[in-house]
Amino acid sequence: MQEIVLYTYDWVPEPPRGFVRDIRLRWALEEAGLPYRVASVSFKDRGPDHIVHQPFGQVPWLTDGDLSVFESGAMLLHIAEKSDALMPSDSKGRNAVREWVFAALASVEAATQPWSVMKFSGFDGDNPAWAFFDNFVDLRLKRMEAVLSGHEWLVANRFTAADILMSDVLRLMNRFGKLDDYPACKAYVERATARPAFVKAYEDQLAHFAAAD
Amino acid sequence: MQEIVLYTYDWVPEPPRGFVRDIRLRWALEEAGLPYRVASVSFKDRGPDHIVHQPFGQVPWLTDGDLSVFESGAMLLHIAEKSDALMPSDSKGRNAVREWVFAALASVEAATQPWSVMKFSGFDGDNPAWAFFDNFVDLRLKRMEAVLSGHEWLVANRFTAADILMSDVLRLMNRFGKLDDYPACKAYVERATARPAFVKAYEDQLAHFAAAD
Repeated sequence: MQEIVLYTYDWVPEPPRGFVRDIRLRWALEEAGLPYRVASVSFKDRGPDHIVHQPFGQVPWLTDGDLSVFESGAMLLHIAEKSDALMPSDSKGRNAVREWVFAALASVEAATQPWSVMKFSGFDGDNPAWAFFDNFVDLRLKRMEAVLSGHEWLVANRFTAADILMSDVLRLMNRFGKLDDYPACKAYVERATARPAFVKAYEDQLAHFAAAD
Repeated sequence: MQEIVLYTYDWVPEPPRGFVRDIRLRWALEEAGLPYRVASVSFKDRGPDHIVHQPFGQVPWLTDGDLSVFESGAMLLHIAEKSDALMPSDSKGRNAVREWVFAALASVEAATQPWSVMKFSGFDGDNPAWAFFDNFVDLRLKRMEAVLSGHEWLVANRFTAADILMSDVLRLMNRFGKLDDYPACKAYVERATARPAFVKAYEDQLAHFAAAD
């Protein structure tokens, strides 16, 4: 099987280390046991050679032979389609993985991303925008708490690619203590990140950026 | 071919009419010429019968036989896989549609949604959070302007499901005059919304909510 190449920055500042989105794909590739290597692109200079693969000048993207794929969700589904480790084989199960991959991004991260941006930027004080976005995250977490109270994993009572994305989105909330009122969400993050494939992906990302210091 | 049933609210307040997300699926179903009908669920009471189909208590969702699908992106790909009108048949083209569907949600709408929430709520004044999110939208629009300056449509020089989602995301920015500095984005929205399938979907949504007044 041909080797997948996963592209990420050569270096990032300290705060996002362990949370750069290549971890979602490293994790998936480790779960699937697929051959891959990680390649670096410049954090500081993002020229046309970068933009042609990732039109927003971000990372990660991957290549698989002559196919180049960007967007975490699309890459995750691309990898999941190659491995029974990440997705059931029946059409209902595959549909459910896809909808939860979208839900992790478009319903949950759509709320957690403005929240964490405001938190990182110190806008989390006494202002109406913060009150709005903090409430928006709580609305989503309440619904995820209901979902995860009844299930160990999102789809078909087994770990899938959807859990990689959802638990990684919730992991950032946990970093800020935001899951303390959501025990099922918190236990889900702990369960997911205890998996050897996550542990390896996490350590590999930290080592990758540390090597450039 | 069995009829797809698209679920949306029975009523919504005036401001979001024409922008409720069922329009994305109405539009896709009209482009594809697939048999479908629209069914209503209560806007005011969202009980367990709603949550079982849409865990966040939102709309739309669809059923296709005994399959129930939520998340606009997942529904759009489900419909696109049934029709050459929405997606090329080769694997590179299909991959590109999928990555742009994710990009419309996770890269562009991730920036435009907090922006429009703040605009709607009147938080768009002299405060650092507004400055941040306004700049975030500009970052994304600059990149989309570069993409759309060279292409009439996102994928394979033809209209696809990715254009439904991307143009609908940008349409909300256009409503607020935010595309005035981005002529290629603005022309793209105008080109997309001039399509008869969009016009029908838009009029049908307005009529649906007006019927409940």
